[in-house]
Amino acid sequence: MPKTQKVPEATIKRLSIYMRVLKDLEKKNTEVISSADLAEICGINAAQIRKDLTYFGEFGVRGVGYFVKELHFDIRKVLGLNEKRNLALIGVGNLGRALLSYKNFADHGYDFVAAFDTDKEKIGSDLPCGIPVYSMDKLDSLAKDLGIDIVIITTPAEFAQDAADKAVAAGVRGILNFAPTQLNIPREVHLKRVDLTTEFDNLAYHLHAG
Amino acid sequence: MPKTQKVPEATIKRLSIYMRVLKDLEKKNTEVISSADLAEICGINAAQIRKDLTYFGEFGVRGVGYFVKELHFDIRKVLGLNEKRNLALIGVGNLGRALLSYKNFADHGYDFVAAFDTDKEKIGSDLPCGIPVYSMDKLDSLAKDLGIDIVIITTPAEFAQDAADKAVAAGVRGILNFAPTQLNIPREVHLKRVDLTTEFDNLAYHLHAG
Repeated sequence: MPKTQKVPEATIKRLSIYMRVLKDLEKKNTEVISSADLAEICGINAAQIRKDLTYFGEFGVRGVGYFVKELHFDIRKVLGLNEKRNLALIGVGNLGRALLSYKNFADHGYDFVAAFDTDKEKIGSDLPCGIPVYSMDKLDSLAKDLGIDIVIITTPAEFAQDAADKAVAAGVRGILNFAPTQLNIPREVHLKRVDLTTEFDNLAYHLHAG
Repeated sequence: MPKTQKVPEATIKRLSIYMRVLKDLEKKNTEVISSADLAEICGINAAQIRKDLTYFGEFGVRGVGYFVKELHFDIRKVLGLNEKRNLALIGVGNLGRALLSYKNFADHGYDFVAAFDTDKEKIGSDLPCGIPVYSMDKLDSLAKDLGIDIVIITTPAEFAQDAADKAVAAGVRGILNFAPTQLNIPREVHLKRVDLTTEFDNLAYHLHAG
C-alpha cells in the first residue's frame, strides 16, 4: 500500500461510508456489487468512489464490479480498523451518557474502557452501561494501564481545554471534541471536532435554497 | 446573490465553521480580520476560504481582510440562518435527551418545539428541558400547527424508516438521521445522516497512519 500522496480528509470520510455499506452487503452474503449499485447505495457517484480508492491501490474489476468481502477487508486495513481501539470519555453529562451507551461503537471495534468527571457524586459509581467513572486525577495512570487510544470530550465548553491538556499529558494521541469550542493541541495529537449544529446549518441551507 | 452553480456540500460545511468563528470574533468586538488570521483560527487555508466565498459574491478587501460583522451577516444570509428553525425529535432515548438539552442549538437559532415517542411511559410527560413528549399519532397535526422545519431521528435503527415516513407524510422538509441505518426519502426532502462512528474511523486512520 504505497503512501505517496496525502489522502484528503473527505476521502477518509467516504471510505468510512463505503465500509459500512460493504459490511451490510457482506452480512447479506452479497459477493459482488457493480460500481453503479455501490454508488447508488452510498449516495456517492461511481467516479468519486473509483477516485477515492485509487489512493490505496487497485480495486474492482472492469465490467464486474467490486468483490464485497475483499474490498471491505482492504478498506478496514487502510483505515487501521483491524485493531481494536480503546476509548475513554471525559464529562459524564447527557451527551456523554448517550455516547457511552451507544452500542454501535462496539460493533465497529471501539470499546469504552473508562469515563472521567470532576463531579464527586459521579466518581466511583458505575454507569448503567457498566463503565466506571473515575476522578480526573486518575487519567494519567489509567491512560497507560488501560491503553487508551482516543479520548472523547463532552465537558461544557469552559472545561474542554483543561480536559484536552490532561489527555495530551497522559500520552493520548487522538481526541474527539464535542464541546462547542476550539482546542489548542500539539501538532502530533490528532484532533477532530464534532459540531452538531453544523449539520443543522447544512439542512437549513438546503431548505432555504429550495 | 447569483446562484449560477451548485455549491459543494464541503463548502456549505466550511461556511458553517467560518460563521461560528466570525460570531466569536464579533462578540470580542473584532472589526476586521486578515485573511491569514481567519484561516489560522478556522484551521482552513486562506485560498480555500476565498474559493468558498466566491460562490456567493465578493467578500474581503485586498490588503485589509474581512469585515467581521458584514461577513458574518452575509454568511448567515447565504445559509438561510437569519430565520428561526423549529425542530422536533423522534425517539426520546439517551441520545435524544442529550440533543434536546443541548443549549448550543438554541444559540444558533434552532428551537426544539416537540418530541415524539411510541413509549406510553414517556408520552404526555415533559422532559427536564421543558419539551413535551407526544405520541407519534400527533406528528401529522403538530408538524403543521407548530411549523416543524426539521425532524431529528434518534430511534433505534429498526424504527427509523417508519419515523422518517411519518415525518415526510406530515410535510417536514428536512430530516437529520442519527439512527445507524440508510433511509429512503423522496427526492424533495433534505436528508442528512450523522454517523458518529465515522468520526472515530477518521481518528483511527490518523493514529494508524502515524
